[in-house]
Amino acid sequence: MVMGSLPEDADLAVVGGGVGGYIAAIHAAQLGMSVVLIEKEKLGGHCLNYACIPSKTLIHIADLFYNAQHAERFGISASATIDAKKMLEWRLASSKKLEDGVGFLCKSYGIETVKAEATFLSSKELQLTNGTSIEFKKAIIATGSEPTPLKGFELGGSVIDYKAALMLDEIPKSMAIIGAGYVSVETATLYAKLGSEVHVIARSDILSHFDPDARSIVKRRMEELGVVIHTGSTPKSHDEKGITLEDGTAISADKIVVAIGLSPYTKNLGLENTKVELDARGFIKVGSDLRTGDENIFAIGDVIGEPMLAHKAMRQATVAAEGAAGRNAAFDNAVIPAVVFSDPEIAVAGSISGEGVSTLKFPLTALGRAIALGRTEGFIKLAYDSDNVLKGVEIVSDDANVLISEAALAIEMGAALEDIADTIHPHPTYGELMQEAAEAALGRPIHYFYGKAAVKK
Amino acid sequence: MVMGSLPEDADLAVVGGGVGGYIAAIHAAQLGMSVVLIEKEKLGGHCLNYACIPSKTLIHIADLFYNAQHAERFGISASATIDAKKMLEWRLASSKKLEDGVGFLCKSYGIETVKAEATFLSSKELQLTNGTSIEFKKAIIATGSEPTPLKGFELGGSVIDYKAALMLDEIPKSMAIIGAGYVSVETATLYAKLGSEVHVIARSDILSHFDPDARSIVKRRMEELGVVIHTGSTPKSHDEKGITLEDGTAISADKIVVAIGLSPYTKNLGLENTKVELDARGFIKVGSDLRTGDENIFAIGDVIGEPMLAHKAMRQATVAAEGAAGRNAAFDNAVIPAVVFSDPEIAVAGSISGEGVSTLKFPLTALGRAIALGRTEGFIKLAYDSDNVLKGVEIVSDDANVLISEAALAIEMGAALEDIADTIHPHPTYGELMQEAAEAALGRPIHYFYGKAAVKK
Repeated sequence: MVMGSLPEDADLAVVGGGVGGYIAAIHAAQLGMSVVLIEKEKLGGHCLNYACIPSKTLIHIADLFYNAQHAERFGISASATIDAKKMLEWRLASSKKLEDGVGFLCKSYGIETVKAEATFLSSKELQLTNGTSIEFKKAIIATGSEPTPLKGFELGGSVIDYKAALMLDEIPKSMAIIGAGYVSVETATLYAKLGSEVHVIARSDILSHFDPDARSIVKRRMEELGVVIHTGSTPKSHDEKGITLEDGTAISADKIVVAIGLSPYTKNLGLENTKVELDARGFIKVGSDLRTGDENIFAIGDVIGEPMLAHKAMRQATVAAEGAAGRNAAFDNAVIPAVVFSDPEIAVAGSISGEGVSTLKFPLTALGRAIALGRTEGFIKLAYDSDNVLKGVEIVSDDANVLISEAALAIEMGAALEDIADTIHPHPTYGELMQEAAEAALGRPIHYFYGKAAVKK
Repeated sequence: MVMGSLPEDADLAVVGGGVGGYIAAIHAAQLGMSVVLIEKEKLGGHCLNYACIPSKTLIHIADLFYNAQHAERFGISASATIDAKKMLEWRLASSKKLEDGVGFLCKSYGIETVKAEATFLSSKELQLTNGTSIEFKKAIIATGSEPTPLKGFELGGSVIDYKAALMLDEIPKSMAIIGAGYVSVETATLYAKLGSEVHVIARSDILSHFDPDARSIVKRRMEELGVVIHTGSTPKSHDEKGITLEDGTAISADKIVVAIGLSPYTKNLGLENTKVELDARGFIKVGSDLRTGDENIFAIGDVIGEPMLAHKAMRQATVAAEGAAGRNAAFDNAVIPAVVFSDPEIAVAGSISGEGVSTLKFPLTALGRAIALGRTEGFIKLAYDSDNVLKGVEIVSDDANVLISEAALAIEMGAALEDIADTIHPHPTYGELMQEAAEAALGRPIHYFYGKAAVKK
């Protein structure tokens, strides 16, 4: 099929070509549906083009740049320079590769991809900005989110959003980041490592939704890297020199990054022509089967609520595609893991607090690999119920982004501490954190001494 | 208690203070036994002092040194020098910290540690080289292994073993490594990255016990790093200039590393005075409860057989301590994961072949994170039975050493592909490899196109 010869109807129309949308499209096509995927800009959406992938790429580069120049303890003397234009080229090229990959997959499965915006005319029809319209049997809304604007700090000049902060072709001498969530922390850390003077303006504290134990480690490290964190602060105004806070503090900043959060993207969707309903915050309301108030229309990902994380959308994509294909499917995951690519990383699966739940903390100071690499700031925390069933895991450590997968699987499978303690985790790796903590929680700690009273015979 | 005031008897005598021995001692003390731990050299044994920890420390340093200088694609221009003396100091200091940590743990639990060699006088008594003797109720032998010697290449001058190769205070201009297992591969890669000209002399091929798919990737990378691999070769002789092979090839080498394997260490143990039996290769024979032919004596770790891996000994330590304390315990782990810290890493859990088992391979070229970091050489392979129960996982990738823990837990818990596919793995991480491969094996692949015929509705 070629553009212009659009089918007038489709079993499924997917609105939004981000990780939620394209995975839903692929899975629906695998289930035998004819699928149209409508994306107004780039396949892969924010995640591939402006968020997850670019940020983790730049964080990796910044780590390499910084760590090599701070490895005197290992005997390494290094001096390095960074060419931000080349860095940007790499980051754009990798996004492009992924975008092309998604295009290839869609083509391979016979999915019609259309570059347009879509507006619902009814519960059965979409009008596209390219002039065509589509009659669908089912639709999935996967329009995602957009950076929340901040009054008085409209984008333009030195004021940019987090997407633009990942597209700079020079390293700013100074940067002020408004916001205190993971995007702010990641961006601040990354540019501090690349040599920028970074200020973070936090209404309360950074990562305020996270465990104070985790937060304090990351905060201390950011400060070591030279990041100035203005807690309890509100930005008041800005000019070409920088930003002024409510309390009068003036901060020089070549770039001002607004990163105060994400808002669901439902602009021009024409939901008023359907039975789709929004909640008070503007998120689309869905049931556990991800169906909206309109029985023909499903919604997934950021547009249906927190947590606004790519992998949540990816899993929901599969569930919604199955539902659209007429199967019984529910989004019933016990765990949506979350990772902050801070220094060290923070990763959480499940909940580390709650009624009837005990917690156990095992510090990195007792882990061979962390000691050998000189990276002992951090810990793992396990939460488990009275039957020793694992309920939550928090990890503050290098490699936490990978480690948390085992925790997620363990919780989903109803693993008990014994399952983890008795599984051989290779030595010397960060994987041992799970095992050490489980052994300790069972009263048979190995590499950390909790006192003799902590031992259970 | 102080040295010299040794108890004349102990509930448990542990012979060997490596990771197997000291963990057995700690666990037995936790179970209420009076324990004597006898180590002839250093607490922590080979793993902490000469093998796992030092090698992974040096590999980390070499990676940092090399990667920073080869990051032009990211926009990084770096020049670096390495001070091998400082590198050695760090590596020795980290081993020392760990050794001291073990000493602290033993002291905390009231374990008597004795620096001596031990010889069994009977099934109840040990004679120590410090002149004392110990009457024990139970004993655990955890004497480990030692590098296998090679005739004609006795240690001395430029001929060293893998332990000495991790204690060099300068980077050799050239190095010839005899042996083709993981120790050889890790040592070769590490010194190649630090600037040595490295030759590997392999009787057949490197990593011949591993999957050819994995081996070929690591081999190609080693060759890219300048390592010359002499397959099907036998070393004939050596002099101060280097080494000569049977086929006449002369190789210049400042250092010649003998790394042909490990042999069980039973020297001077006096096993003839007990009912302990050895097998044809010199390993101590044990039952599934890790009891030797002598009902009072257990044995664990390298000294009882392959695989000679620290984490196997660590798990067996717990089992043997429980057995010694009179509990029913068996070493019945389905999985002993193995990791090669090559470039990229190889990690295996369970078996990736076998009767009635299907396999599925998912390449790194289809993983967002690997593409973004330019590290697409590698894959994950899953093996599963006709009920979709996971039986084995092989990973060739950065972070494989951490990833394999999830695989080990999954196999131990009898996880099915659905369990893994439906668990949310955070994006963008290498953890997604497990999920992507499971989805593909279930006939609903996402980021790699296996052809339409591979799809199961």
